[in-house]
Amino acid sequence: MTDVPVIRHNVSQVQVVSAQGLERPETLATEEPMEIRLAGPGQAPASVAVTMRTPGADFELAVGFLFGAGLLGPAADAVASVRYCDLPADAAQRYNIVTVTSSRPVPAITARPFAISSSCGICGTASLDDLAQRCPAVAPGPPVPAAVVCAMPDQLRANQRIFDRTGGLHGAGLFRRDGTLAVAREDVGRHNAVDKVIGHALLAGEVPLDGHLLMVSGRVSFEIVEKAAVAGVGVVCAVSAPTSLAVDAARRFGVTLVAFLRGPHFNIYAHPERIDLGR
Amino acid sequence: MTDVPVIRHNVSQVQVVSAQGLERPETLATEEPMEIRLAGPGQAPASVAVTMRTPGADFELAVGFLFGAGLLGPAADAVASVRYCDLPADAAQRYNIVTVTSSRPVPAITARPFAISSSCGICGTASLDDLAQRCPAVAPGPPVPAAVVCAMPDQLRANQRIFDRTGGLHGAGLFRRDGTLAVAREDVGRHNAVDKVIGHALLAGEVPLDGHLLMVSGRVSFEIVEKAAVAGVGVVCAVSAPTSLAVDAARRFGVTLVAFLRGPHFNIYAHPERIDLGR
Repeated sequence: MTDVPVIRHNVSQVQVVSAQGLERPETLATEEPMEIRLAGPGQAPASVAVTMRTPGADFELAVGFLFGAGLLGPAADAVASVRYCDLPADAAQRYNIVTVTSSRPVPAITARPFAISSSCGICGTASLDDLAQRCPAVAPGPPVPAAVVCAMPDQLRANQRIFDRTGGLHGAGLFRRDGTLAVAREDVGRHNAVDKVIGHALLAGEVPLDGHLLMVSGRVSFEIVEKAAVAGVGVVCAVSAPTSLAVDAARRFGVTLVAFLRGPHFNIYAHPERIDLGR
Repeated sequence: MTDVPVIRHNVSQVQVVSAQGLERPETLATEEPMEIRLAGPGQAPASVAVTMRTPGADFELAVGFLFGAGLLGPAADAVASVRYCDLPADAAQRYNIVTVTSSRPVPAITARPFAISSSCGICGTASLDDLAQRCPAVAPGPPVPAAVVCAMPDQLRANQRIFDRTGGLHGAGLFRRDGTLAVAREDVGRHNAVDKVIGHALLAGEVPLDGHLLMVSGRVSFEIVEKAAVAGVGVVCAVSAPTSLAVDAARRFGVTLVAFLRGPHFNIYAHPERIDLGR
């Protein structure tokens, strides 16, 4: 259905000067803007967003972003095609524009759909209400052993290949209930890494993901929980802290939220019934 | 000229369950959306962006964001007033909408100005060209001793009061050339923390900031360098890694970029001539 995009340059080499005055080469995570366009059957592509991202898994990123934003509708057979820009533009830019064609009519793209409200009603509650309209609460499912949860950070870390070379990337991993890793992705943007793993699952026909756990390498904000809830992920785990709105959203949408997950220690912030603490 | 906004709830209390099954209270960084509106003399306010932020220093955030985006023009006397929403809306929402009135006519807000391009020309180079149009290269200035640079992380950390309680916030600090801290701010979003310190300086009449250094607690992306360059900051320092586009932008706009700044160690990625290594 979609071309598998070539993994392009996700690291860059630069010369640096150390505190001792020595020049040496260093490897950096690449950051480049990518424009995401959405088309429907017989509908011309419309520009939806530009995200600063690390090249690689671009098709997954575009699909995951659009799905999380509610622009693709139900997951099943949502995507007809994904392609890079085919205009006769600068060849270097071709891979910085991705067009997703939905198999169903798509809503008209209004101005700034992800960053604007014309009313006074913009607030955490408004965001949660908006989310409620396109996202039923995640199904309960059987509990996951705490040992499975505690083993995820090391597995994700072992799959952060660009982080190992640059120290400059967020990681996201999708795990099955038995603790095996389904897919891991990296990006300079934490939300992009999550979009990539959910986009991967969607293109593989595996959404909704109610039998899965999502692990992120850093902190967990509202948007991470939102993306998980829309994809039906029942458990979200983070190495670092959650925000207040991440906890509110997880409690409301039936998502188990685990954070400060380090070694055998973690805190459960929402829906602890999905974690089997073995006691 | 502007009301000083009351620092509102920047932390929230929640009950958590530990891996040992114990319930206890925990403190989280608050995350709430804030809408930024821009008006000119005789021009009605237009919605520019919604950012997920930690409440506190909201006026500084709005002003810093708009200035960094090039929407306020030259810094001197740019801001006529800043205020919270005064519509008869839900009182809880009043403090999530900030309107900045410029003392000069402002450009019409077109659709998605910060996240969209209708052409194929969107790329790192296009972003840098766009930045070049509103930002002259930062003036050289005398070198800063390496000891001043190395002392900044601990000073910033000592001023991250919410981080101490939650572990969930980015910090940004603006330092003078002699190493004294001018202002430090925290936020769940790294860009917001930078907007807050630059907005603070702008409201105090201290922009351009060519005698200053900017320190951020995490990684440094293109947008951080962009905001620094627009405000005339000559030196940007980060605890963690830079991205490729951050380095490109710093080199092009005359910004000294220091990263992986930990204890006595750091790397200089752009314009090392502003750091005196004492050798």
